[in-house]
Amino acid sequence: MTGWSAPTRETLFVLNDVLGVTRSEIPGYDMLDEDTVQAVVEGMGRFCTEVLAPLNPVADAQGCTRHGDGSVTTPDGFRQAYAQLIESGWNTLAADARYGGQGMPHVLGTVFEEYMNSACPGFMMYPGIVNGATSTIISAGSDHLKDTYVPKVISGEWLATMALTEGHAGTDLGLMRTKADPRGDGSYAITGEKIFISGGEHDLTENIVHLVLARLPDAPAGSRGISLFLAPKVLPDGTRNALGCAAIEHKMGLNGSATCVMTFDGATGWLLGEPNAGLAAMFIMMNAARLGVGVQGLANAEHAYQRASAYASERKQGRAMGQRPDPAAAADSLLVHPDVRRLLLDVRAFAEGFRALVLWTAMQIDAAHHGDEEADALVSFLTPVIKAFGTDQGFASAVAMQQVFGGHGYVKEWGVEQIVRDARIGMIYEGANGVQALDLAGRKLAKDGGKVAMRFAAMVEADLADAPGWLATPMRAALADSTAAAQAMLAQAASDPDALGAGSYAFMELIGLVSVGWMWAKIVQAVDGRDDGFAQAKRVVARHFAERRLPDSMALRCRVEAGAANLMAMPADMFLREA
Amino acid sequence: MTGWSAPTRETLFVLNDVLGVTRSEIPGYDMLDEDTVQAVVEGMGRFCTEVLAPLNPVADAQGCTRHGDGSVTTPDGFRQAYAQLIESGWNTLAADARYGGQGMPHVLGTVFEEYMNSACPGFMMYPGIVNGATSTIISAGSDHLKDTYVPKVISGEWLATMALTEGHAGTDLGLMRTKADPRGDGSYAITGEKIFISGGEHDLTENIVHLVLARLPDAPAGSRGISLFLAPKVLPDGTRNALGCAAIEHKMGLNGSATCVMTFDGATGWLLGEPNAGLAAMFIMMNAARLGVGVQGLANAEHAYQRASAYASERKQGRAMGQRPDPAAAADSLLVHPDVRRLLLDVRAFAEGFRALVLWTAMQIDAAHHGDEEADALVSFLTPVIKAFGTDQGFASAVAMQQVFGGHGYVKEWGVEQIVRDARIGMIYEGANGVQALDLAGRKLAKDGGKVAMRFAAMVEADLADAPGWLATPMRAALADSTAAAQAMLAQAASDPDALGAGSYAFMELIGLVSVGWMWAKIVQAVDGRDDGFAQAKRVVARHFAERRLPDSMALRCRVEAGAANLMAMPADMFLREA
Repeated sequence: MTGWSAPTRETLFVLNDVLGVTRSEIPGYDMLDEDTVQAVVEGMGRFCTEVLAPLNPVADAQGCTRHGDGSVTTPDGFRQAYAQLIESGWNTLAADARYGGQGMPHVLGTVFEEYMNSACPGFMMYPGIVNGATSTIISAGSDHLKDTYVPKVISGEWLATMALTEGHAGTDLGLMRTKADPRGDGSYAITGEKIFISGGEHDLTENIVHLVLARLPDAPAGSRGISLFLAPKVLPDGTRNALGCAAIEHKMGLNGSATCVMTFDGATGWLLGEPNAGLAAMFIMMNAARLGVGVQGLANAEHAYQRASAYASERKQGRAMGQRPDPAAAADSLLVHPDVRRLLLDVRAFAEGFRALVLWTAMQIDAAHHGDEEADALVSFLTPVIKAFGTDQGFASAVAMQQVFGGHGYVKEWGVEQIVRDARIGMIYEGANGVQALDLAGRKLAKDGGKVAMRFAAMVEADLADAPGWLATPMRAALADSTAAAQAMLAQAASDPDALGAGSYAFMELIGLVSVGWMWAKIVQAVDGRDDGFAQAKRVVARHFAERRLPDSMALRCRVEAGAANLMAMPADMFLREA
Repeated sequence: MTGWSAPTRETLFVLNDVLGVTRSEIPGYDMLDEDTVQAVVEGMGRFCTEVLAPLNPVADAQGCTRHGDGSVTTPDGFRQAYAQLIESGWNTLAADARYGGQGMPHVLGTVFEEYMNSACPGFMMYPGIVNGATSTIISAGSDHLKDTYVPKVISGEWLATMALTEGHAGTDLGLMRTKADPRGDGSYAITGEKIFISGGEHDLTENIVHLVLARLPDAPAGSRGISLFLAPKVLPDGTRNALGCAAIEHKMGLNGSATCVMTFDGATGWLLGEPNAGLAAMFIMMNAARLGVGVQGLANAEHAYQRASAYASERKQGRAMGQRPDPAAAADSLLVHPDVRRLLLDVRAFAEGFRALVLWTAMQIDAAHHGDEEADALVSFLTPVIKAFGTDQGFASAVAMQQVFGGHGYVKEWGVEQIVRDARIGMIYEGANGVQALDLAGRKLAKDGGKVAMRFAAMVEADLADAPGWLATPMRAALADSTAAAQAMLAQAASDPDALGAGSYAFMELIGLVSVGWMWAKIVQAVDGRDDGFAQAKRVVARHFAERRLPDSMALRCRVEAGAANLMAMPADMFLREA
């Protein structure tokens, strides 16, 4: 009993019944029939349940160890599990077939991301970057770099990192100091220090391919003077590159992941893409990573839910106020208490709707890969929402499920407090959630004058036509709140440069709320006419979302409409406490 | 630099300007003049800032150690700090003068509770129980027990515990198995195991006085068959009692506090109060503890705020969208970003309003101690709100302030992630927040037909008469939502036994929201006519609360109105995931 097993029935329901992947006309989906989908989902589920989930408490208790020579040891069992992953082939399922991947749709790779993140998120951090890293090299690298590095990273023989952040400059990459001096032979000497590099050093693979942001000599100041480089731990001639792990961080959680301070001491690297165009290349990687982090939020919520629902079913405490399931017993299960049910249904209302949302989005990514520009624009619009709303709600879900355990939830042996600690980073890394919200409000909403937002709203509205009134009515109200909020924010922005920043967070939450509600409309539609327990449960959870979550849209709209004036009215020196 | 210093200016503003303690006619307050109040507050602040705050990271990193003989060592520095606490006399400030206390008003003791909980909550857990324990012994104990134990616990020579919880029965004390057999000499032999006993064993004092719930032979089943006993670690004849620490828990946080599994193996104890009336005696202790836990939420928020506001002021990253404070600099401080300001002001809007609320409530406790029954009823009404709303918001505040640090917030060395881990327990212990909410809806609202709730609403309404429209208007709307929610819940409860449970949590949050907003009305009134920075800041934070927090009342009301039907419609077996 590891407290989690792959929710394959939920996944298959979403893929087959809600999203109809086997009937989809997205290119490449013709290879998907129900038997194939089931075999793949169940196979990935077994691997994560049997191989990865048992590692999770070990990873937390042991963490990673850096040795005097800069080498890093991962927790017990990680090396064997990683070898089994490569052996299983699940890691290459959705990877590019031109470079040795199996070329299956990304939607199936997303299922595997969820499962790995539920089973052992500290382990997932190592292969988790592969998709983004290889996409970046494929899109920006020379043929030589592509041929040398992509097949080995896709196969899993080597792993990769994103080496972006520096100590004095987190989100603000324009302040970056790491430099790259051309050597005249096509290579560059990279010098600087990067922090928070996940998997910067470890013992899972012989080589690690670092994608490093640095400045060329005479590069323009700020973010327009940043270039992206590829610098491997082991050079093609077999020698060690001049880079290494100077320290690993002691973190709140995610202890299985080695978060490294990396020093580059004239390390050899090659340019990826054009000089000073590093930010654009980096965003290929970042967007993949951001969606992956949103999936992590889902995975945290599902894992915590499974533990809490099992505990609530077994734990006998207190008595029902209403009908008692067993009047002779000294106590009833926690499930008789309405407020315990509220906690559990809150989490399901998020997790099940959000699972549909990330898989729907993954289908749009598959469509976008085949040239569908509308799908691409929708993915761009929803990426910051999936990242920020998903991780906020994933963390809140873990906290809520911890509450179901009472005091036991605070004690390490029950496993749920680890999920809270592990989940907390999702709201921060790959661009803190406030940055995601600003990306949504500024780049995704304002820059195109709200066009993609309107298309999104029209799609939601279309699916409400068949929804029952108890869902369609509050959904229309929430959609109207989100539209009004967008209009208010754009109107404020015409005269107030701080308006987007002031309203962005609540606006992001509005779009998150509406997106998940939209998926509930699809789910309810998918069980229409069915009256089995599974279908009944879906309607109960949908109604829970409608009754108890959608009304938040009113306050979120008010927060957007409040604007920036009062926020900015606080004198900067009044933020500090005087003793 | 420990990241926190006592916010004495804030405290003195609330005590003097907002609540007018020096002008109050509550018996005993005549000893308070502004000089005395200032000297006491600053003295307590210095002690906590200089002696306790430096221990906080040590306590987290070291935790407590149980040795083979069952003895427990607290973290380095705790013994010396405890000796300094006794020496300082701050621990006896508000204690009963009949038993060696200084008899100052409880409102000043509450200030000390906040400061200790900000400085080092793991340390605070040891003296934190003293007030509740001594009140219980004074109210329920024989003269002999009072004379033997109360003065030594008040002086701090000995410490005390609440030994209530058993492994199979958390909140449901009726399931308790620990038994007490009369020995015929007035003493009882207590046998059983208790878990989650804070300070059950430690090295701070020679003796520890355990207040233990147990069953007499032939006691009625359930919670009406529980009695309270006093069982000291060291018996009056100097021998060790038959009780001890079997293990200490490994927790998410609060590592400085030894959370013990305690075994009682025929330990000698004496009855406190009447046989089978242990629950009533215990509630004396619990109510004090619950208010103390709410104060802990405030303390967590204030501590986290101080760290985050200092970081945001110093950290240069990104540029202002609007006016730049220093156009020549490469980057501005984080304070130029509206969304960072939002996070900081959210926390201040809670913490400053809530500080006023807990100190106002402490004044009502002082009044109730002198026979004011209306004050006592208000304290009873607000106790579950202060406990649950305070700890929910305290935890959320710590999480929000962690966000300001970006990736650094996730790393141990910055100190803010510890606050998150330490704060999490507040929502669970001394009655999980769901239990608090049910206490409010069931015992405090429904049982008296809403009378005290109406009195509360009338007091709030009265203070809105002088409030500016930007605060009074949304406050009246929130108050109306809370009244409508109460009426809806009581109406549902007439026919649905699950209605109170279903609506209780959102109702508790509504009363919390209105209570804090009420205090903002008092605060704004207190700075009326002043135009200095401090007063301006108070108005900005008040308006922030009005614009961005009060609108939550609409959704909270909807959640209450939704009732129990859908929550209870979920078949119990559909909560478990099928693979």
